[in-house]
Amino acid sequence: MDITTIVGLLLGLVALGGGFLLEGGHLSALLSPTAAIIVFGGTFGAVTLATPFEELKKIPKLLKIAFTYKPRDPMETIEELVALATTARREGILALEEKIETYDDEFFKNGVRLVVDGVDPELVRSILETELSFIESRHEKAVLPFDQAGGFAPTMGIIGTVMGLVHVLGNLSDVENLGPQIATAFIATLYGVSSANVIYLPLATKLKSRTKQEVLIRELMIEGILSIQAGENPNILGQKLKAFLAPNLRAPKAEAGEANVETT
Amino acid sequence: MDITTIVGLLLGLVALGGGFLLEGGHLSALLSPTAAIIVFGGTFGAVTLATPFEELKKIPKLLKIAFTYKPRDPMETIEELVALATTARREGILALEEKIETYDDEFFKNGVRLVVDGVDPELVRSILETELSFIESRHEKAVLPFDQAGGFAPTMGIIGTVMGLVHVLGNLSDVENLGPQIATAFIATLYGVSSANVIYLPLATKLKSRTKQEVLIRELMIEGILSIQAGENPNILGQKLKAFLAPNLRAPKAEAGEANVETT
Amino acid sequence: MDITTIVGLLLGLVALGGGFLLEGGHLSALLSPTAAIIVFGGTFGAVTLATPFEELKKIPKLLKIAFTYKPRDPMETIEELVALATTARREGILALEEKIETYDDEFFKNGVRLVVDGVDPELVRSILETELSFIESRHEKAVLPFDQAGGFAPTMGIIGTVMGLVHVLGNLSDVENLGPQIATAFIATLYGVSSANVIYLPLATKLKSRTKQEVLIRELMIEGILSIQAGENPNILGQKLKAFLAPNLRAPKAEAGEANVETT
Amino acid sequence: MDITTIVGLLLGLVALGGGFLLEGGHLSALLSPTAAIIVFGGTFGAVTLATPFEELKKIPKLLKIAFTYKPRDPMETIEELVALATTARREGILALEEKIETYDDEFFKNGVRLVVDGVDPELVRSILETELSFIESRHEKAVLPFDQAGGFAPTMGIIGTVMGLVHVLGNLSDVENLGPQIATAFIATLYGVSSANVIYLPLATKLKSRTKQEVLIRELMIEGILSIQAGENPNILGQKLKAFLAPNLRAPKAEAGEANVETT
Amino acid sequence: MDITTIVGLLLGLVALGGGFLLEGGHLSALLSPTAAIIVFGGTFGAVTLATPFEELKKIPKLLKIAFTYKPRDPMETIEELVALATTARREGILALEEKIETYDDEFFKNGVRLVVDGVDPELVRSILETELSFIESRHEKAVLPFDQAGGFAPTMGIIGTVMGLVHVLGNLSDVENLGPQIATAFIATLYGVSSANVIYLPLATKLKSRTKQEVLIRELMIEGILSIQAGENPNILGQKLKAFLAPNLRAPKAEAGEANVETT
Repeated sequence: MDITTIVGLLLGLVALGGGFLLEGGHLSALLSPTAAIIVFGGTFGAVTLATPFEELKKIPKLLKIAFTYKPRDPMETIEELVALATTARREGILALEEKIETYDDEFFKNGVRLVVDGVDPELVRSILETELSFIESRHEKAVLPFDQAGGFAPTMGIIGTVMGLVHVLGNLSDVENLGPQIATAFIATLYGVSSANVIYLPLATKLKSRTKQEVLIRELMIEGILSIQAGENPNILGQKLKAFLAPNLRAPKAEAGEANVETT
Repeated sequence: MDITTIVGLLLGLVALGGGFLLEGGHLSALLSPTAAIIVFGGTFGAVTLATPFEELKKIPKLLKIAFTYKPRDPMETIEELVALATTARREGILALEEKIETYDDEFFKNGVRLVVDGVDPELVRSILETELSFIESRHEKAVLPFDQAGGFAPTMGIIGTVMGLVHVLGNLSDVENLGPQIATAFIATLYGVSSANVIYLPLATKLKSRTKQEVLIRELMIEGILSIQAGENPNILGQKLKAFLAPNLRAPKAEAGEANVETT
Repeated sequence: MDITTIVGLLLGLVALGGGFLLEGGHLSALLSPTAAIIVFGGTFGAVTLATPFEELKKIPKLLKIAFTYKPRDPMETIEELVALATTARREGILALEEKIETYDDEFFKNGVRLVVDGVDPELVRSILETELSFIESRHEKAVLPFDQAGGFAPTMGIIGTVMGLVHVLGNLSDVENLGPQIATAFIATLYGVSSANVIYLPLATKLKSRTKQEVLIRELMIEGILSIQAGENPNILGQKLKAFLAPNLRAPKAEAGEANVETT
Repeated sequence: MDITTIVGLLLGLVALGGGFLLEGGHLSALLSPTAAIIVFGGTFGAVTLATPFEELKKIPKLLKIAFTYKPRDPMETIEELVALATTARREGILALEEKIETYDDEFFKNGVRLVVDGVDPELVRSILETELSFIESRHEKAVLPFDQAGGFAPTMGIIGTVMGLVHVLGNLSDVENLGPQIATAFIATLYGVSSANVIYLPLATKLKSRTKQEVLIRELMIEGILSIQAGENPNILGQKLKAFLAPNLRAPKAEAGEANVETT
Repeated sequence: MDITTIVGLLLGLVALGGGFLLEGGHLSALLSPTAAIIVFGGTFGAVTLATPFEELKKIPKLLKIAFTYKPRDPMETIEELVALATTARREGILALEEKIETYDDEFFKNGVRLVVDGVDPELVRSILETELSFIESRHEKAVLPFDQAGGFAPTMGIIGTVMGLVHVLGNLSDVENLGPQIATAFIATLYGVSSANVIYLPLATKLKSRTKQEVLIRELMIEGILSIQAGENPNILGQKLKAFLAPNLRAPKAEAGEANVETT
């Protein structure tokens, strides 16, 4: 459960709605089905036109990730790598084969399997880096619809408001209701700007930062797997990988990892 | 037929038009020939000035691509490459000559032909990568007019609205029609912002993502062709190429491809 | 004569002016000397302040290029290079000396002369690539004033309109003329946004795409000159250079070029 | 104490508040709890949704850095490095071990320790550069919430103002208070634009420039540590490192550093 | 004296002020001390908060450069380098020592001194390129406050105007002066947008283009110094360096430089 996703979303909606209530408004005054059709329908249409079907299909999965993603602790990955390196030194590289069966990361297993298969180190690096760069670009592409929705929604809001004003100004006979009608026209702007800034854009930013975290973990894995293949000292390996992390993330579980260390 | 292009376009237009109808407006209130001349004429003029004639000529073809493009399945390309690699191993590289006659991709045939002609691998890579990078930059250039139309249209809308307001404010005697006249002035803004956000910009985005898909397929081809020339194991080749794809794209047809694999 | 530059410019001006006329306005209503002074004077002042004198002096020449540039056909350059390569193979590199006297491209002649002088290939490449990268950055710098004018003009328009409103609002006694006075204030916005979007920005874009075409031709020349120096097969040279071009540009004159080809 | 952070913040607030007072307004007219809820709550919600919890936790620490950061003098670092190089030349590299205990920079100590441990120079460079690039990207990530707040706040202000206008326009009966009510609606815009431009964005910029200064110091350290390992002449080292600095920063303490220099 | 800086600044101010006078306004109507406090005080506060003190101190010096900078003729630098190369060939590298004493460019003298001292060519290049890249990044950093002022000023103008409107709308009793009061509120927008577009942004652009010119001259120096160290033919050196320049800059003084040339 990604708590900041839910808290942030609720906070944003409550702040806007609550502020309006405290001003003495009724939330019903913010409801306008036509504005909703124009803004959300228009945004969805533009995003659909802009996005290949393969990408559109991923949106529900991405939403699930945004709300439930639990970031992995990079120190755990480092410890796993140091443990693997220790095993490889003591029992040989082939001993890694059965150990990796317990891991659930396909990328990691795939990389270790290449090492066990005795593939050339340069080729291992090239295969894993290619795979990682494609993972990265797929993730970036998958976030595009959210970014686009964040760009299209406010302009759809403006379109809705201008349409509303065109309608109001074209029929000025009903002067009594002029104010409420203009108010209704502005609801579209409200929908467009709010949905972009409370939902689409922050969600896109969150998903992008998740991608960066995933990529960091994978970079750790590539470095680790190649060091294991090169038969490097697990101690140096631990040192090198910890350089990828913030100092405060390095301390906690470091002892366990370093207990395995041998001197060359 | 690219279904999301048509669905997205219709969805956008229906949402905007439908929302206006539900508000109680008549669609005729959204028609303004002068606004259309200013916005679409002005946008077309600016794009024409900005774009060399060679690029302008490509627009109809690009529109056709946007509506009819059927993305190729990269797994099929990988399978073809693995099959070619198997043939090359069994029957020699010259045997590829007749096989490639059945392919319809000029880039692919061209690449295999270089290998059959015994051109130096470094030169093959350099020729194909140069060709690909020029394909990419030509595609990017071809999409520019759509991006530009998306940038110019809203400002043309503002110009049309300001012109309309100048006209209205200059002749205030006719107070009765003031409202409808201002409403008409806003139609230009509506045309400019809507055409940019419902048509031009999403279309440009769609075309760009098509380019990326094409480039990915071509990168697969380059890697594959060079591996075939190097006489690599078709098995490793399949592995390496699948690293370019998302995991869910790798599974479906993988068995067929791997059935061809031999061990070195 | 660059037809799209003139057609695009006229189209934009006619669309805006014609739309206004069809609305029933008089073009005289769009004339305002004070708005012109503020917008065009202010824009010219800002561009002058922002630009070194050396760059300002180039503006007339750039305008001439924008209106009269005739793009060279890259296939012609390729054919010339293939012909030169054939000559070099048959008669030796020194035979190029007199042939190049007929060319009118200083960059091309300069490059061939280096080859004839027997300068080291690495140095030839480095000299020509340096020269090309400086040509490119000089062209980019030369277009900056147009881009800047496109950025400053709309804000100068806003400044003019706000000044006009300040003037109007400061003297509200003359209620009769309030409308026309506000209308006049908006003329500045009209001048600023129109000049930027109908003239400056599209012109900058056109000039940038011309630069890209020039650079592509020069890249062809560098590749060709170095291949000639290396004594490459003219056939392979033609192949390699055609990879720089779009498929539809390769076909037309290809036969002539390939007729010269010898096999190694 | 970072004096410009405090002075700049006060200056901004005093200028805005003071300007309003001089116009004859009461500061109480700028207070609106509902606008504050909408703008600050909405901004905080959007930032929370956009940012992983690990990053949110760093905000208080970053604020402390922004207000108390004392930039290190790079000349001091250079002098320390020259002194270390002199020690290493005279007493051997192992003599550095006890000297570095007095330093308080973890990155520096870590680097020197690698040299003392006899780790291969290429590996030392790779470990330190990796560590630095991750430090840099962590700092950039940490500043993102401020940048985002600067982006979201003005739109939250617009949302608050539109909501206020919707409320006012929906209840036009109370004509007397129309002006003050609209005034109140604009307070939200004021909060959004002011908080972004007086606080969030300048703070983000300040923090980014601090990161650049830190990175420069660390780059000096890496160059210095590697030169020490290579046994370079402390004199040349001092020269080389001073090339990183502006001329006016090089002069002040240069004598002390160069007094240690020996000729090879 | 940089004539375009002064002419451009005056032109901009005269165009805006003159346009207002021709409209029949009095310049006194554009004066508003409170708007000045809000806009200039707010902008200065934001820039101060955003900028480290070391950078703020450089602003007066930068202003002096913007107004008095006299661009060096790159042909002169090339001629000096060719002359030095000729001296080095005839009299040996040590003969350069006394010649450079007359130059006033610290970077140039420093580079030649390294050559005279017999420092390794790779190290010379690395020291000079490092120095140049730091010069470049220092210059870029120094221009930031102008760019930032150009970004903050318009929003401070909006803040000032909204504050003015809040004040006016909160006290609608004085209907007579409503117009002039609103006019005064708009003065803040005028100050913000004008100062950004007539002063800050063009000044930042001018300073950036000066940096580019300086860097180009220094790149010439690095290439020249390294060629002298390598003992290259002064003729080829002149050719190579002239490739950095626009053709029209190459002609004027070329004869003098080439008179020194010897053939190998």
